[in-house]
Amino acid sequence: MNQTIDLLQGHRSIRKFKPTALTEEQIQTIVHSAQMASSSSNIQAYSVIGVTDPALKKQLAHLAGDQNYVEECGLFLVWCADLYRLQQACAKHGVEMQKQYVESFLVATVDVSLAAQNAALAAESLGLGIVYIGGIRQNPAGVTELLNLPQLVFPVFGMCVGVPDQEPSPRPRLSRDAVYHENTYRTSQITAGIDNYDQTMHDYYRERSGGKLDTNWSKQISEKYAHPSRAHLRAFLDDQGFGFE
Amino acid sequence: MNQTIDLLQGHRSIRKFKPTALTEEQIQTIVHSAQMASSSSNIQAYSVIGVTDPALKKQLAHLAGDQNYVEECGLFLVWCADLYRLQQACAKHGVEMQKQYVESFLVATVDVSLAAQNAALAAESLGLGIVYIGGIRQNPAGVTELLNLPQLVFPVFGMCVGVPDQEPSPRPRLSRDAVYHENTYRTSQITAGIDNYDQTMHDYYRERSGGKLDTNWSKQISEKYAHPSRAHLRAFLDDQGFGFE
Repeated sequence: MNQTIDLLQGHRSIRKFKPTALTEEQIQTIVHSAQMASSSSNIQAYSVIGVTDPALKKQLAHLAGDQNYVEECGLFLVWCADLYRLQQACAKHGVEMQKQYVESFLVATVDVSLAAQNAALAAESLGLGIVYIGGIRQNPAGVTELLNLPQLVFPVFGMCVGVPDQEPSPRPRLSRDAVYHENTYRTSQITAGIDNYDQTMHDYYRERSGGKLDTNWSKQISEKYAHPSRAHLRAFLDDQGFGFE
Repeated sequence: MNQTIDLLQGHRSIRKFKPTALTEEQIQTIVHSAQMASSSSNIQAYSVIGVTDPALKKQLAHLAGDQNYVEECGLFLVWCADLYRLQQACAKHGVEMQKQYVESFLVATVDVSLAAQNAALAAESLGLGIVYIGGIRQNPAGVTELLNLPQLVFPVFGMCVGVPDQEPSPRPRLSRDAVYHENTYRTSQITAGIDNYDQTMHDYYRERSGGKLDTNWSKQISEKYAHPSRAHLRAFLDDQGFGFE
């Protein structure tokens, strides 16, 4: 249809990279593209730390749950929700920034996500590969200390960027009807969509494992959500000055 | 550099649309592009309601704070964080989905944001224009009722999509140094970045208002954050089954 649609629809995460650093020009293009994403009332409530130092990358790879590609990729980006800059802007006018309850946390999380997705697509359009790393939330306090993040800054996710050393195929998604509703939410579309996707993913796993893996999507979800996860986040966010009242 | 980079870096929000409905093919391309965005552990914790019904659009425009373009655009998308589908997947295996504290809310918010940004770029690559509508959080309970959203579904933001009837220029952003740090967060870059951007935006507002508007970025931020905003969100999210413990 056009180059951008092909890129969007051809996305697959890369988890094996060649040991090639990004050029300064590539980094500039990626960051500039990120910055032009929409931002709620132009508050631009995010920051990004580009980690190039090998020792730092090694520590971050460990903190993210020993994910080697964090160390091996050309550039590791740490995407942060950032209310610190807004607090400084308020202070410049003698105003104490008011707690915005859940709203500020939400808006900063959306802002950083839109910017990061622009960065991902810019990188992919340059022939690079990416993978998001939620694992940095395993130890957000450790990441915060390592990168000297001030109060009101929260590392939401990481992103490996680099030259791909593998060529995986895109992973099948839920059917359109399981995700898209016209005018009203229909729970019947969800039930049918799960059954349909379970068959798709069952076949997908079986084929990729040479017949060994016998699972499906809802089974994996039920295993993942049988136990709470990252219960430390609330206390960490309270410590960093994000409020949920 | 390439068509995608040009598109990413040329983004501007559109707030005036021609009264042209989207074609079925356009909607399919946009939704398919959204679905291929990265998703945390492939949970795809979002849904999107495409609003085409004129009466519904009118009500949503009102709920969003009387934003006329919600009514006038070709398609209004309501992007929702969705844990309901995951709960149903768990139920299929007799598992009661466990509260994931802040983590589930966060992951669903990131998932929906990445998908929405892909949709925005797909639409723009087709010559359409978009604007994000955070205003639907003014009355999330009203939106939830209107669209029949079940428990564990939260309308995070809306998005107008349509044929542009204006040609605004991209808005200047913070300097790169105010947003991007190498290896460590430097608060000195923030202070300098705010001063620099204040000058840029002061000139930008003055030029666009024919000399009448005398403000800057930090002043606007300090006015916005002098008072709490959308304090109702926490109670709404508690009612919808999202937990922050």
